[in-house]
Amino acid sequence: MNSLSFTDWAKQTQHQMEMVLEKTLPLVNEEPYKLNQAMSYATLDGGKRVRPLLAHATAALFDSNAEAVECVAAAVEMIHAYSLVHDDLPAMDNDVLRRGKPTCHIQFDEATALLAGDALQTQAFIVLANAPLAPSQAIEALKLLAFASGAKGMAGGQAIDLASVGIALSLESLQQMHQMKTGALIRAAVLLGAYCQKDGILPDSNTLSALSSYAEKIGLAFQVVDDILDVEADSATLGKTAGKDAAADKPTYVSLLGLAEAKEKAARLHLDALAAIEPFGEKAKRLKELADYIVLRSY
Amino acid sequence: MNSLSFTDWAKQTQHQMEMVLEKTLPLVNEEPYKLNQAMSYATLDGGKRVRPLLAHATAALFDSNAEAVECVAAAVEMIHAYSLVHDDLPAMDNDVLRRGKPTCHIQFDEATALLAGDALQTQAFIVLANAPLAPSQAIEALKLLAFASGAKGMAGGQAIDLASVGIALSLESLQQMHQMKTGALIRAAVLLGAYCQKDGILPDSNTLSALSSYAEKIGLAFQVVDDILDVEADSATLGKTAGKDAAADKPTYVSLLGLAEAKEKAARLHLDALAAIEPFGEKAKRLKELADYIVLRSY
Repeated sequence: MNSLSFTDWAKQTQHQMEMVLEKTLPLVNEEPYKLNQAMSYATLDGGKRVRPLLAHATAALFDSNAEAVECVAAAVEMIHAYSLVHDDLPAMDNDVLRRGKPTCHIQFDEATALLAGDALQTQAFIVLANAPLAPSQAIEALKLLAFASGAKGMAGGQAIDLASVGIALSLESLQQMHQMKTGALIRAAVLLGAYCQKDGILPDSNTLSALSSYAEKIGLAFQVVDDILDVEADSATLGKTAGKDAAADKPTYVSLLGLAEAKEKAARLHLDALAAIEPFGEKAKRLKELADYIVLRSY
Repeated sequence: MNSLSFTDWAKQTQHQMEMVLEKTLPLVNEEPYKLNQAMSYATLDGGKRVRPLLAHATAALFDSNAEAVECVAAAVEMIHAYSLVHDDLPAMDNDVLRRGKPTCHIQFDEATALLAGDALQTQAFIVLANAPLAPSQAIEALKLLAFASGAKGMAGGQAIDLASVGIALSLESLQQMHQMKTGALIRAAVLLGAYCQKDGILPDSNTLSALSSYAEKIGLAFQVVDDILDVEADSATLGKTAGKDAAADKPTYVSLLGLAEAKEKAARLHLDALAAIEPFGEKAKRLKELADYIVLRSY
């Protein structure tokens, strides 16, 4: 695996992830059909799978249980997928296009999309609780994923984001919002990969703090780059509506810092992320490549 | 505790539950304010707390860790509360009154209610993962609660219920739907109480199967009685809109069996539930009283 180019490694991992997600989602040919189909629709065949890639990249630092890595990666991706389904609903962003396809509530209906999001969140915890981990690893992983998803993480960040439309947010508040809304789950993805070590081994505090630092930097970089792309790219390349944030009068790194300084910030976060994983040496190859990818991507 | 009347025991447990929920929910005077307030609004000061009472009643069969019992009871109640918030949304039941108060999306707004439900589900798993249980107990408890809440449990039952409006459902399908929609979480509440034993002791298979049988009977009885009350009681007594199911052309036990046979069914389930916990003797006092309460309640 380590000899593959980043692109080939990512493709292979994404392909494998697709199969794992299919296996760990409820069967589409079983009752409740519509719900199960909506859950699969919202999760399969789409997305860059950044969070699963991060979990895999961290797991590569250690002697990890491959099946457990697949489970934690699937779990974090299901949380991400649920959040997209609910974010797209009319009561929230009211978006009709996602990854170039109709959003879940357009393809099905609002009630089904609501329930599919709910059940995807639950499915993440089902998959994680049933992963082949030592109970002490599983509990730490569950704490991590749940905390990152809840009121002090993703859902809370989304609430602050909603409340901030049309408000002059400070850079600090914007950063805090993004750390919760997207950063927390990215951090969980990175750290979850450290809880899949064979023989029930738990990561030590130095490892956790280095990974945490890396994750926080790339989490912010991810958002800064998103804001830059929202201004610079077109809808066809993004697979979603471009210029949406500006149109919605939402504060962004670009609107607060200007384009040039936003790009500088992304570059600085990139270097900081690489510095954080320096101690892991060559084993951090994929984590390094992912940091590069997140900052240098064009969509 | 065992010498208290059922009413006093229930009141005391409900009161204690209120404090535990307050303690385990995000603080309302911390960011994100609106989200945290909506989560508290939807959870505190309301409901019969049937699921927490069941968890406490099961825990009373064993030498249980009181703090752990409180956590599992709070977790299952948070799942219940989240489901009510989402069920009440315009895309689902579009209800404006719940427990005699405006529903969450009326009191706040739709986006906040959506997120509050999402974060309440997550909070349930946060509370359970952080409960003072042995890791092997905690993992079993998490599996139980997650499975009962997801596509093969509560959310799945809700999806089948939605799809069944105006459709001539068979008695078997109606039963299957209710077993998922409300039965699964009631069963989880009962069984969770068995995973709080001191010294990390896990329940044996005989215990689990007796509790499971009890839980399934009272779960169904709960729904049959709900359907009867929907026909017989008025909105003021129920604290929600009466006659709603008939108006929505939803199949109910009363519409399928008639009122007399529905009452007979409730009585039979009641007896079966009591038979299932017979082997536990006097220790099952509260479980017995809860079965009585569920069948004989008037709202």
